[in-house]
Amino acid sequence: MKIQINGEEKEVLAIWREYNKVKIIDQRLLPHKFVILTLNSHRETADAISDMATRGAGSIGVAGGYGLAQAAIEAERLSQKKFMEYMNDAALRLVNSRPTAVNLKHSVQRCLKKAEKGSIKERIIAVCNESELIASEDVTASRKIGFYGDELIKINSRILTHCNAGALAYIDQGTALSPIITAYNRGKEVFVYVDETRPRNQGAKITAWELHQQDIPYALIVDNAAGYYMSQGKIDLVIVGADRIASNGDVANKIGTYEKAVLAKENKIPFYVAAPKMTFDSECRTGREIIIEERTSDELTHISGLDDEGNYRSIKITADGTKVLNPSFDVTPAKYITGFITEKGILHRPFSVSIKKAFD
Amino acid sequence: MKIQINGEEKEVLAIWREYNKVKIIDQRLLPHKFVILTLNSHRETADAISDMATRGAGSIGVAGGYGLAQAAIEAERLSQKKFMEYMNDAALRLVNSRPTAVNLKHSVQRCLKKAEKGSIKERIIAVCNESELIASEDVTASRKIGFYGDELIKINSRILTHCNAGALAYIDQGTALSPIITAYNRGKEVFVYVDETRPRNQGAKITAWELHQQDIPYALIVDNAAGYYMSQGKIDLVIVGADRIASNGDVANKIGTYEKAVLAKENKIPFYVAAPKMTFDSECRTGREIIIEERTSDELTHISGLDDEGNYRSIKITADGTKVLNPSFDVTPAKYITGFITEKGILHRPFSVSIKKAFD
Repeated sequence: MKIQINGEEKEVLAIWREYNKVKIIDQRLLPHKFVILTLNSHRETADAISDMATRGAGSIGVAGGYGLAQAAIEAERLSQKKFMEYMNDAALRLVNSRPTAVNLKHSVQRCLKKAEKGSIKERIIAVCNESELIASEDVTASRKIGFYGDELIKINSRILTHCNAGALAYIDQGTALSPIITAYNRGKEVFVYVDETRPRNQGAKITAWELHQQDIPYALIVDNAAGYYMSQGKIDLVIVGADRIASNGDVANKIGTYEKAVLAKENKIPFYVAAPKMTFDSECRTGREIIIEERTSDELTHISGLDDEGNYRSIKITADGTKVLNPSFDVTPAKYITGFITEKGILHRPFSVSIKKAFD
Repeated sequence: MKIQINGEEKEVLAIWREYNKVKIIDQRLLPHKFVILTLNSHRETADAISDMATRGAGSIGVAGGYGLAQAAIEAERLSQKKFMEYMNDAALRLVNSRPTAVNLKHSVQRCLKKAEKGSIKERIIAVCNESELIASEDVTASRKIGFYGDELIKINSRILTHCNAGALAYIDQGTALSPIITAYNRGKEVFVYVDETRPRNQGAKITAWELHQQDIPYALIVDNAAGYYMSQGKIDLVIVGADRIASNGDVANKIGTYEKAVLAKENKIPFYVAAPKMTFDSECRTGREIIIEERTSDELTHISGLDDEGNYRSIKITADGTKVLNPSFDVTPAKYITGFITEKGILHRPFSVSIKKAFD
């Protein structure tokens, strides 16, 4: 991802590994501060996932793999039996740090499998290699999603996106943003409506910032306004990412995705979900099986930003004692989805068939 | 409206007049600070409307009438011709302070009509009386809306509301909240899902606070979560207010109302709009004629609340230079609306007939 730091253009990744340390861009401080965090252990990596210092389906998948690589290095001097106990324990901790995200579960499972055979040294190398493989697969998948998704974007398309499925969520160009970036780079005029995405404002803080960095025309809107622009005929296409996709095509994604999908259907606007293989959960038959993470009320009662003196601070925006319900995700039934943009091409209906065919 | 100030229970109105001064509860500071503002001239009243120190269809309607009463008192020493010029000028300023709201236009027109005949002194009295009549009509209408709307609320109903159509928006019990308060006071168990209502968070700041003051069970949710709870079968009924209703039943209301209406229809949940006669605009044939107010980008880029030391302050929550589009209202086509809760009873389809019959 290209970013401007102090007027200089730099190419950075959302997450990378330096032997037993994991480096991440702290997404909680964006767009106000650009800070790279060092995570010194798999526990710190698990905490960074659950605190959402790193977030987005792909990034936390990679973080999960890296976390297990860290765990393997940490367990270097243990016996084979204790080593596996340590690894299983670490895997559980990492997977539970964001229960809805399937990429996390998949990548942790893939790396854990590599810890099962050979000498401790061989196992460490195998886990580390697997975690790097996951990261590089993400880069390839992101580019291919851009390549296939670009075909859906006509010149002068006005596209709505929800939450952030860009470079910080998914290494390289992201998922939902990748077709938009590809189309733009190929010279198509586009305009992106960016949902603010309450309660954590990933659209306002990250998607708007990423589009700004790449000079792609956009406007930030409140989530409430997306339906209005659809009803005014000002949105041609919706593209969102996903946290987990069931075998029947039901999609778990950031809270509000379901609302946009229903509104798109009502206004006859195509609604696409961009996601790589790793987001498809073949063990999950329908959206009803997906556990929806309920997060703390702080996400609604407090908000962070810069004060007049440029200090980053949190303020309280509701009355003391305000009662809150805060589901983090929702499930969009497959019937609202036009198609999936994947590294294997666009998947059409019936999804139970096309998903199986693409990834089995 | 009952409120607790320093542990004491007080009965206050959102707005009242003391001869040439208008007093309002400053809704921008709620729920953090309870401040009563004194508006010393019709210009200050117009500014308070456009700055949203007072807001809500009913309250700004009353404010418009009071503003014209202030203008009449201000023009006391002018000639008859200059008096009318001053009044027309004041009326225009007041109506333009919130262009979407029809209550404002109606009450200003009603009061302006009273300025046309008699001596200056008689005109001043007539305008002042008319403005008080509007305020007292609001109280009566609010109670009747509660009375009729209560019939729609079953025991253990779970009700969604958007924005704020309570006591601060509409004198006494509000419009959308009035049936809920009436049902609760009659001993029915209810539960209210309160949409945060970005960008100005009237749900979070005012509706949640009003329900809290009256001990009515509720939960604040992000606007994005309303559809999720509908899809989970957890919402039985939606009641919202309105800023303007066309003769065919199309409704202009706070941005996001259209989204909730579409989602309610998709989930087969009744969607009611609570509003008094004054909100129905017989001169407006359909929603297409309603001008949608576009407000400043500050409403998305900045937010106010209390810091750790209890100081009220504004912080910036987006990057510098973030591009914003900020429509303040949307139009919900009549086809999504189950009925209108009015002081004349519940209005059913076809609305072009029932609205005419109720109010002509």
